[in-house]
Amino acid sequence: MNRRMYELGSRRSVIREIFEYGKKRAQQEGKDKVFDFSLGNPSVAPPAIVKETLLRLLQEEEPTALHGYTSAQGDLAVRRAIAAYIEKTQGVEADADYIYMTCGAAASLTISLSAICNAGDEVIAFAPYFTEYKVFAETAGARLVPLASDPETFQIDVSLLEKAISADTAAVIVNSPNNPSGVVYSEETVGKLAALLDKKSREYGRTIYIVTDEPYRELVYGGVKVPYLTKYYKNTVVCYSYSKSLSLPGERIGYIFVSPQAENAKELYLAVCGAGRALGYVCAPSLFQKTIAACQGVTADVSVYEKNRDLLADALRSYGYRLVKPDGAFYLFVRALEEDAYAFCERAKRYGLLLVPGDDFGCAGYVRIAYCVSPDMISRSLPYFKKLAEDYGKSID
Amino acid sequence: MNRRMYELGSRRSVIREIFEYGKKRAQQEGKDKVFDFSLGNPSVAPPAIVKETLLRLLQEEEPTALHGYTSAQGDLAVRRAIAAYIEKTQGVEADADYIYMTCGAAASLTISLSAICNAGDEVIAFAPYFTEYKVFAETAGARLVPLASDPETFQIDVSLLEKAISADTAAVIVNSPNNPSGVVYSEETVGKLAALLDKKSREYGRTIYIVTDEPYRELVYGGVKVPYLTKYYKNTVVCYSYSKSLSLPGERIGYIFVSPQAENAKELYLAVCGAGRALGYVCAPSLFQKTIAACQGVTADVSVYEKNRDLLADALRSYGYRLVKPDGAFYLFVRALEEDAYAFCERAKRYGLLLVPGDDFGCAGYVRIAYCVSPDMISRSLPYFKKLAEDYGKSID
Repeated sequence: MNRRMYELGSRRSVIREIFEYGKKRAQQEGKDKVFDFSLGNPSVAPPAIVKETLLRLLQEEEPTALHGYTSAQGDLAVRRAIAAYIEKTQGVEADADYIYMTCGAAASLTISLSAICNAGDEVIAFAPYFTEYKVFAETAGARLVPLASDPETFQIDVSLLEKAISADTAAVIVNSPNNPSGVVYSEETVGKLAALLDKKSREYGRTIYIVTDEPYRELVYGGVKVPYLTKYYKNTVVCYSYSKSLSLPGERIGYIFVSPQAENAKELYLAVCGAGRALGYVCAPSLFQKTIAACQGVTADVSVYEKNRDLLADALRSYGYRLVKPDGAFYLFVRALEEDAYAFCERAKRYGLLLVPGDDFGCAGYVRIAYCVSPDMISRSLPYFKKLAEDYGKSID
Repeated sequence: MNRRMYELGSRRSVIREIFEYGKKRAQQEGKDKVFDFSLGNPSVAPPAIVKETLLRLLQEEEPTALHGYTSAQGDLAVRRAIAAYIEKTQGVEADADYIYMTCGAAASLTISLSAICNAGDEVIAFAPYFTEYKVFAETAGARLVPLASDPETFQIDVSLLEKAISADTAAVIVNSPNNPSGVVYSEETVGKLAALLDKKSREYGRTIYIVTDEPYRELVYGGVKVPYLTKYYKNTVVCYSYSKSLSLPGERIGYIFVSPQAENAKELYLAVCGAGRALGYVCAPSLFQKTIAACQGVTADVSVYEKNRDLLADALRSYGYRLVKPDGAFYLFVRALEEDAYAFCERAKRYGLLLVPGDDFGCAGYVRIAYCVSPDMISRSLPYFKKLAEDYGKSID
């Protein structure tokens, strides 16, 4: 048996572990006693057009075609719809021949990194970063190199990055809006990043790719704009998923978009196709490919998340917690009230508050709070967050 | 960029290549001029219960739960339904805790082999075998060792296998009903295989696993029974898919069942979970997990395939072609009428007949004919098969 796989299976991701614990505890003590902030499972219903489209396809389409294999890279009409939407909204060149439909963001990342990396390569990620990046990089034969971000803003620390890039650097993972910090990288950050990668690619005589993980692109508040990376850096591979924007995380539907401006873009796209094949992805689920094609430009009602963010962030600050109020995604990344975030999370559990320690996101001393839950649960949880703060001697404003 | 992935992407599977050629030629010359026998895309509609269940779930279930993440190993109720069905129909021990839902058979195989194999291991497959086994074995760090089958019956040649097993053998892939031969392994074959693997596992002091690829289990004709392998050999991992039995190939839904009797079954199951995680599979598509749970024991109308088989096999024989009339799946594996199957397929193309050379299945000198097409297309194609035989000087009975 394979040791790495056994270890990945037996030491589940911390998030999944807490999620399973929460389900068990809710069964034992009652749902109202558990405040599960562990999982990024959207609480807002998919927009109405999703159900309408599913019903229409099921009623009107010939079923063997509807549920049949698509081309490995995805149904052509679907890829065309996505390319047209990218061109229209982002003003960048896009083309169906550079889009590869996937089973969601995790598949997009694993496939992209496997297409780009060779054994011994390094992939840089900016902490805090999504815990599974390490797993995906290692599947591609590479090593994940985590880098600290600016501790005040969680923007990329470009001077740290300059020192970290080496002859082995194959790719840099960008995730904005960020999981778990919620931070959106500014145009200034993106510009500096692109300039540095251009310089370093020349210096080392190898293309350093940006792999950008974008499931939260549409989950932004207060009119913030998320820069589209192919506009700033040609060697970019966009990994998109409809999990959050259409509230379809279980359906596993997303895509990879290789910038047509990338060096050897055609070859890179073929390597993406090859990696999908090697990893056992025959095609992305057919019914949902056709469904999302009809939902371009539609997003679940994110105003609920915005209200949740405001309610929770403002209350936590008033209780004495320290946090950056984020512009996007549905996470708060909060300073733990003691040095050891694990110990802090254990104490929070006494009040039924299930939080995820930041250590697994590469940031010790923080916790992630996923606020994609019902506003009611947030309101009911606040007295417990307050008590938790009082345990640490925080005085209340 | 990764060379292996680029090559896998640029040299597409021969089957996919012919399929894409067929689509293009049909556009140019008209659909009635092309007889595409290349792809195993079911032509029989999914049974009515599939659509009914999909509509019911969409109308009745709360959408964020319906489309939400399931546990990584799959929804518990779904896994329970599958385990109960296996126990009831096969009379073997099964359990939800040993079932892992997947995105179809290719995912099941890639995950299983990745869970079992270590770098340098060997995986044995019996020719003719599904072309992608080589790719999946190599993703798992192993080397595929193809073995010839009995040329008269396409049953496993156990004496050849005895010589081929080495200290590096990690697994043997079994595929019955077989793609591309359509042959069902008899109880006698399975018994001999199990006894040999038991003996060799002891001899080498390592467990040799059977990985059994079973998408065609229900596609059998004339009351033939397909032996259930966990009954004969404890170290068995069953890879199942609903692609063919429910005519849902594009929806990517299937499962892995680790026999609870396997040595270290619990650990092996965890390695399966770990491999799914490493390869980027977060969970199998949620809506279709719930759909197939309600369709246990239902199969698309396979009588159409049986009639196709009889019509085509009998006609081809009467034209002078040599073939084993198979008991299952929806393929005929036919002797090419010249030594070079590629040249034979090129000649067949002149008549619009799109066949797949056997070389990629590990059997030179044969072609695969996928008869999961409309009976009408088969009838219209027969005169061309006859002309093709006449080109080779075959006299007609």
